[in-house]
Amino acid sequence: MLEAGRFFVPGPTEVRPEVLDAMRRPVIFHRSPAMEELMRRVSGGLGKVFGTRRTVHVITGSGTAAMEAAVLSGTVRRVLSIVHGDFGERFARMAEACGRTVVRLTSNPGDVVSLDQVRDALRSGGFDAVTATHNETALGVVADMRALGALVREASDCLFLVDAVSSAGGVPVGLDDWGADAVVSASQKALALPPGLAFAAVSARFVDRAKSVKNRGTYLDVLRYEEFAGKAQSPTTPAVSLLFALDRQMADIEVETLDSRFARHVAMRDVCTAWVQRAEAAALGVSLVARPEHRSPTVTCIRTNDRDAILQRMREQGYELGGGQAPLAKNTFRIGHMGDHTVVGVESMLDVLERVLRTI
Amino acid sequence: MLEAGRFFVPGPTEVRPEVLDAMRRPVIFHRSPAMEELMRRVSGGLGKVFGTRRTVHVITGSGTAAMEAAVLSGTVRRVLSIVHGDFGERFARMAEACGRTVVRLTSNPGDVVSLDQVRDALRSGGFDAVTATHNETALGVVADMRALGALVREASDCLFLVDAVSSAGGVPVGLDDWGADAVVSASQKALALPPGLAFAAVSARFVDRAKSVKNRGTYLDVLRYEEFAGKAQSPTTPAVSLLFALDRQMADIEVETLDSRFARHVAMRDVCTAWVQRAEAAALGVSLVARPEHRSPTVTCIRTNDRDAILQRMREQGYELGGGQAPLAKNTFRIGHMGDHTVVGVESMLDVLERVLRTI
Repeated sequence: MLEAGRFFVPGPTEVRPEVLDAMRRPVIFHRSPAMEELMRRVSGGLGKVFGTRRTVHVITGSGTAAMEAAVLSGTVRRVLSIVHGDFGERFARMAEACGRTVVRLTSNPGDVVSLDQVRDALRSGGFDAVTATHNETALGVVADMRALGALVREASDCLFLVDAVSSAGGVPVGLDDWGADAVVSASQKALALPPGLAFAAVSARFVDRAKSVKNRGTYLDVLRYEEFAGKAQSPTTPAVSLLFALDRQMADIEVETLDSRFARHVAMRDVCTAWVQRAEAAALGVSLVARPEHRSPTVTCIRTNDRDAILQRMREQGYELGGGQAPLAKNTFRIGHMGDHTVVGVESMLDVLERVLRTI
Repeated sequence: MLEAGRFFVPGPTEVRPEVLDAMRRPVIFHRSPAMEELMRRVSGGLGKVFGTRRTVHVITGSGTAAMEAAVLSGTVRRVLSIVHGDFGERFARMAEACGRTVVRLTSNPGDVVSLDQVRDALRSGGFDAVTATHNETALGVVADMRALGALVREASDCLFLVDAVSSAGGVPVGLDDWGADAVVSASQKALALPPGLAFAAVSARFVDRAKSVKNRGTYLDVLRYEEFAGKAQSPTTPAVSLLFALDRQMADIEVETLDSRFARHVAMRDVCTAWVQRAEAAALGVSLVARPEHRSPTVTCIRTNDRDAILQRMREQGYELGGGQAPLAKNTFRIGHMGDHTVVGVESMLDVLERVLRTI
């Protein structure tokens, strides 16, 4: 078992003992005033995290579940997928697995698809939805969803569906502000909860669209979540213990304030960035994948030729980092500096990492 | 907060503190040897619970998620749904929500659909799957899945899909023995775990069928679970903390033994049954819904004209019972005697219930 503060996988991330302890509370009935109070209580905080006045739906499942919910109810035939890495590609494949035709716009690793490319693609027309990844976990690339949302709004009637799995809670997210129609996320990333909860914030336009989409299924049908949201319930039995953890964490986030949380994530990113640049200058064989303007506040992806040795040596030092992921699986490793990690904790880890690099 | 041993809702059911405590363990990476060891460890126990040598898939979600997984990959066009109550009806609606045509065979409340009816319906032909509910939670009715499975096998090429949500872990379940093609369940019922995990055991025939079924989606696609099962992993990030609880509970179930567990459930059912019959004879205004041969070892559904008063008065006494559910929502209440409840605990609760009834 790792010591506290040493689990730097880019999701699931480290969960504080206080949050884990919240799950010791006895299970309660999900159709009860106590559960409805809990859902109403967390609802305000989730609204701030997702930047919306609408109810944020809580789904028992992984981030994939919420992404598929967005696809099932928010897409019809043709989808334009903006792909900055493996998770953008997964969003595209999910639409294909639901029978949609998908056209991809794919960036070079570390970069993002330009707005001009998106505009051109939208002009060719015929799309009913655009999928995009706010923060590409595979490569540590954050993209400007406000600009993209404005473009999609201006140039098309598409719904704009955003994967914010590794950003929500660590980077400002704004369903309403972006003009997005779905922003989905999961518990085990920047919200620093155990995995098992997914979140879906959807626009009124999305709900209208969903009403005309066939075969939305049952479990991931957003309209059922909308229906039960009125009574602060979920359509099926929720993961009560994980909701207790969510309740605790939302209260703690309110104390920290979201602004401080966002600033802490930027600071952790800056510490990582500066460290990699120094290590690169010192010829330690590492470099950053993300271009300067797209470096993620929650994940840093680092090029190396010694991935396996680095991960193994760090493990021996009591640290768990993340491996690489497509399209640079073999030649990168990743640091997940998200959730409740601290600048001091990241610095300590980087000191150890530097010693490891110097002896490889 | 209720005292221990007083939460008799028919799911979620009471979870022992030792099992809740297992969730305090720090979250680990889901693509790690530690997680694979855990999954291999629980796999043997789950195989016994579901009566199969095949891998039992663990899905993060409610029982509905696993039921829909069975529908999405195991049905094609026409489904015969055997309906003994609200949950049988939900299985049918789930198939409709996936675009399938459903023919229902519906029993009177407390009874089951006869094998002759099923045989006649299968003869009319054209079905590719049969859905059935092993233990109808809404009415406390258990049905003979072995006989039904044999009939489906003999009279058709249908896949046989069984909802064992409120039976698995409390009543013998047998994917292989029944000749079933899918047996699905959830964590918060007779397995006495917190809600949030669903289980799907599927046959080789099911897997073959799935390969030819289109639009299985991603999150609930059984073929993806099959693929990852080879390395004892799940396709997406699982609810790690709930898996820690599962690990603990499977070890405890092995100590108790499944046979003792089944016997304990029958004993709890018999205590409830005898009590209701005595109370009925004493003109306390209650009677059993399920016919003698179909009384569930995990849930007893009781007719009354005083549902709300009974639930409220029991709550005042520190007990939480279950309300009624369709088709007898208003005129029944339910006792969930499942999971880790004990005969002594059920008897204590019934003593209080009797006092309540005598003063209503």
